[in-house]
Amino acid sequence: MPCSSQLISNGDTLITNNTSVNKIKILYHLGITSENTNFSAEYGDVKFVCLGGSYTRIRNYAKQFSQLYGYQASNNLCKTDRYEMYKTGPVLWANHGIGGPSLSIILDEILQMLLCAGATNFEMFRLGTSGGIGVQPGTVIVSNGAINTALEPYRYQWIGGELVKRPAILDQQLCDQLYHIAQQQKVPVVKGVTLCADDFYESQYRGEDGYFCDNNNNQKMDSMNKLIEKGVKNIEMESVYFAAITYRAKIPGAICCVALVNRFEENIIKMSKEFHEEAEMRPFKIISEYIYRKLNLKNGK
Amino acid sequence: MPCSSQLISNGDTLITNNTSVNKIKILYHLGITSENTNFSAEYGDVKFVCLGGSYTRIRNYAKQFSQLYGYQASNNLCKTDRYEMYKTGPVLWANHGIGGPSLSIILDEILQMLLCAGATNFEMFRLGTSGGIGVQPGTVIVSNGAINTALEPYRYQWIGGELVKRPAILDQQLCDQLYHIAQQQKVPVVKGVTLCADDFYESQYRGEDGYFCDNNNNQKMDSMNKLIEKGVKNIEMESVYFAAITYRAKIPGAICCVALVNRFEENIIKMSKEFHEEAEMRPFKIISEYIYRKLNLKNGK
Repeated sequence: MPCSSQLISNGDTLITNNTSVNKIKILYHLGITSENTNFSAEYGDVKFVCLGGSYTRIRNYAKQFSQLYGYQASNNLCKTDRYEMYKTGPVLWANHGIGGPSLSIILDEILQMLLCAGATNFEMFRLGTSGGIGVQPGTVIVSNGAINTALEPYRYQWIGGELVKRPAILDQQLCDQLYHIAQQQKVPVVKGVTLCADDFYESQYRGEDGYFCDNNNNQKMDSMNKLIEKGVKNIEMESVYFAAITYRAKIPGAICCVALVNRFEENIIKMSKEFHEEAEMRPFKIISEYIYRKLNLKNGK
Repeated sequence: MPCSSQLISNGDTLITNNTSVNKIKILYHLGITSENTNFSAEYGDVKFVCLGGSYTRIRNYAKQFSQLYGYQASNNLCKTDRYEMYKTGPVLWANHGIGGPSLSIILDEILQMLLCAGATNFEMFRLGTSGGIGVQPGTVIVSNGAINTALEPYRYQWIGGELVKRPAILDQQLCDQLYHIAQQQKVPVVKGVTLCADDFYESQYRGEDGYFCDNNNNQKMDSMNKLIEKGVKNIEMESVYFAAITYRAKIPGAICCVALVNRFEENIIKMSKEFHEEAEMRPFKIISEYIYRKLNLKNGK
């Protein structure tokens, strides 16, 4: 559960177990503190948080959202070089870097920030690229589940030397809604389980393309078949962390990634640059349409 | 073992099991390929690879090394926004982002690149910041071992659903040499085991400072005492990946991190900005002195 010690009012007063003490809230990796930021004024209105790996892509998504819907885009709000974060009206955009550990930090600090800001009823999305399994390049996968490389639907987290298995569960209603929008947009789309790998080469069965290659192509195909049996449609590197953290925080969370390659057939991306660029925008188009509709509903349009 | 399929001659010819085929070598995250780069000409002379988390810090280290020893610093050599990489003579500098998965990618792609380039007898270093355990802020820890959050000296890697435990072993001779240089420089220094955590908050026993806090301070102190028994002197987020990959590749590897806080006593960094900036340079000063001495030895000085 969230820490009561995080609830900050008046910018610099921390309410701990119903007693007020002066304490500064520090979000190290965002470079944001209760001294340099008025959380409520700056972030109290956030209703949607969109995360993606690359800061260039996230910066571009924020810019496009701003142009499409007329919300002014902020400058980069992170005050360190660890991440970049942008705000367009009630939508926050941040890059999470590569891998679950990197994502876990920005997600935790954004959750702390929004709790301190008093933001409520927000939803979280991860938009990304991925390797597809048994789907054609360009296909969007809306995740209806996430498994780790032990092939279990958990984030494994060791605390004090003990293994805690955090259920990695995504919001099924959000998944259905994104899937429906993609169908309306005539984007090739499937629902499926996403495999979260801890590296790009061996854990993703790219052994022969990486530095080490103790695994051969036959072992790759055995592994791929195991994944297909489990309903896996794509592989990326953050899904169980994202699913486990949002589920534990009771925040609706969804993951929407485009496949750049069909790993069942090949390891190498063969898309043209133009198709690649268009494909990378597909998760954005689906999620921004979802946000637009939801904002209009709220505004009674 | 490294893949024979990686050995590229003439820039675009791949030697696979003693047969030559035309194939392009692609290092996705560096954005470097055998089409846009002559590996041997650009990277064949590399003798030292220095990795650190933050790209600003790595950029600064490269610049400082260039100024100190008169090697020209390259521009950023990465052609994507995923990492930054610089070269100063025979020394390569790259940032690895946050967490083992992020580090595993750049380390794998640099190893592939150096193999293709024909670079030999090189050494690898990770320079970073960390939380200290039982040491004063500003102390440099030269790692003589690395353990994961299950408190075992392995990188856990699941491939095809099976757990493979990769021994996380660092080069003891390099460790001793760096420790000796730090002592000569009158930098506070200890040798010790480094704990590699998969997140910044709960796995590092900062529960009460993160979003979730199911763990209280008593549990934190129990965990800290367990770590002290195992010889752990600091916590960061990449060591077992770095140690396991360099050991497996038979490349001498060392980790040298400064402690910004003594986690046994406190969670919050209390250094002044000036001390923080000076402390962040300590691992650089030790490793650059090591490199300088080794280069001079080779040059017969």
